[in-house]
Amino acid sequence: MRRFFNNPDTYVTDMLDGLVKAYPKALAFGDDPHAIVRADAPVEGKVALATGGGSGHLPVFLGYVGEGMLDGCAVGDVFNSPTAEQMLDVTRRIHGGKGVLYIYGNYGGDVMNFDMSTEMAEMEDIEVRTVIVADDVASAGPDEAERRRGVAGMVFAFKTAGAKAAAGASLDEVEEIAKRTLAGTRSMGVALSPCIIPSVGKPGFDLAEGEMEIGMGIHGEPGAKRETLQSADEVAERLATAVLDDLAPASGDRVAVMMNGLGATPPEDLFILYRKVHEIVEGRGLSVHKAYVGEYATSMEMAGASLTICRLDDELAGLLDAPARTPFFQEG
Amino acid sequence: MRRFFNNPDTYVTDMLDGLVKAYPKALAFGDDPHAIVRADAPVEGKVALATGGGSGHLPVFLGYVGEGMLDGCAVGDVFNSPTAEQMLDVTRRIHGGKGVLYIYGNYGGDVMNFDMSTEMAEMEDIEVRTVIVADDVASAGPDEAERRRGVAGMVFAFKTAGAKAAAGASLDEVEEIAKRTLAGTRSMGVALSPCIIPSVGKPGFDLAEGEMEIGMGIHGEPGAKRETLQSADEVAERLATAVLDDLAPASGDRVAVMMNGLGATPPEDLFILYRKVHEIVEGRGLSVHKAYVGEYATSMEMAGASLTICRLDDELAGLLDAPARTPFFQEG
Repeated sequence: MRRFFNNPDTYVTDMLDGLVKAYPKALAFGDDPHAIVRADAPVEGKVALATGGGSGHLPVFLGYVGEGMLDGCAVGDVFNSPTAEQMLDVTRRIHGGKGVLYIYGNYGGDVMNFDMSTEMAEMEDIEVRTVIVADDVASAGPDEAERRRGVAGMVFAFKTAGAKAAAGASLDEVEEIAKRTLAGTRSMGVALSPCIIPSVGKPGFDLAEGEMEIGMGIHGEPGAKRETLQSADEVAERLATAVLDDLAPASGDRVAVMMNGLGATPPEDLFILYRKVHEIVEGRGLSVHKAYVGEYATSMEMAGASLTICRLDDELAGLLDAPARTPFFQEG
Repeated sequence: MRRFFNNPDTYVTDMLDGLVKAYPKALAFGDDPHAIVRADAPVEGKVALATGGGSGHLPVFLGYVGEGMLDGCAVGDVFNSPTAEQMLDVTRRIHGGKGVLYIYGNYGGDVMNFDMSTEMAEMEDIEVRTVIVADDVASAGPDEAERRRGVAGMVFAFKTAGAKAAAGASLDEVEEIAKRTLAGTRSMGVALSPCIIPSVGKPGFDLAEGEMEIGMGIHGEPGAKRETLQSADEVAERLATAVLDDLAPASGDRVAVMMNGLGATPPEDLFILYRKVHEIVEGRGLSVHKAYVGEYATSMEMAGASLTICRLDDELAGLLDAPARTPFFQEG
């Protein structure tokens, strides 16, 4: 392994200890050492937003905890769901009296544990709503879109719903914004290498140099098929065509475009991919309101990239542009 | 190669085309397609700051072009100096009537070309000053510190000098801030893998899994020695001890600490390294004014990390905290 860690068993707790040491003014632990919240939580009178999921995807998930985005995050072990108790601890710590919205990716363990956390929170008279992210078009067809996995598209929902909550909206209104954002969000990825969970110590699958797997998930879930690596323009066209065909925006629509690196792919390569995506998006009569190029949702040291496109109306565009401050993401 | 590009010959121009397509409100080309400037350049009445160097290190160099930091950047091919003409083009485009400060890393080609550009600019009555970054303690001993290479420490000089210029300071004052920042800045890196220049197509050196090279440069320049990979805490201690022993801050000093990823190293691993660095820094009686954990200066898909520590006085701390907005870096 070409990686830095101490004991694999303390990988996540060491990481979180370093995180809170690095950003003590922004982030704090809950009662549970796997609960990360805004240092100023709870923000009284504001709808609180929480997420959660396995480690190994930074900045997803905890990187979006901060002003104008999320209030807290339950942090699981690498590629493993956090527990319902960890989610409940986050929920208690961030509740500011106006309810809590969960936004998280569509993975079995996360869904089960967030549902349990919801039941426990409601016994404590905390109103909880849930919006599940299922943006990965490679993971299921449009006729069973509710089975799709959640990937980088969640960042757009964190941003718009977070801005709506910061503006004083109700739980109903914040929930509606998250749903509206995700209804117009689609993603697809391509992997060029596997990655390694420290406690496992070897890759979960093989992917030879010169191969690519279009549609692979962020935990190495199988994609559409394995192929010979193509040029950046060809890869960009494959991703953009799949995402746009599924989203089916109308000519004249405004979109946000995220060209996301999965870990080991240099930013330079991402800009080469983005260049072609931008041409294709404009070629369909769409206008790019904002581009996001960099690492937003990763898979440890996996080489690869994903494309997310989010259709915007005036309100969503304004919410994307609203100020946000987290240690990993700033806007405005 | 596990990478995305088209023709290796157009790697940098494709990348820059994608960059300006992604951030059209922030960045623009100069007359030369290797010249990147603020979209609002020149800012009249402000000292202008320029940098330059080879591609392959994003966000270094062009990622720091923006409000509160740099005005322009000459972009070379991967790991190659830009030309004097490209630097001159940047210089002309950003000059706002109060002179231009060059801040760049200590590499032979860059020094030669920036010196030529300076001569040409002065023939056009543009006053130019130069501050060379030489922060890598592994590259030469303290008795010949002027021979050291420039690595991630340049980011601190971009930030403080950029903020000083944005506040309306003179060329003398901005130059002094850059020099004062760098006089208190030291770095050292460790590599766990090589990286690949697209036009070469294979690694420039071998580094086997399970090995590390402490002190390796960001182009693969040899380090102190090759060793068996140690635990994150041991690596952090090696880096922190070397940097702090050379910098020799006094107990009670405030510092900024940058734990920088070289490309393929996950942010999670960087926080594990940072955790130990933070303990060591505090153990020497220093206080961490601000931590920067992430990718600030990279070497394509190289696995590895570098540590930079910058000693601050009240003015430098204030300049670090001042607002900045670039597509890759935001503050305040």
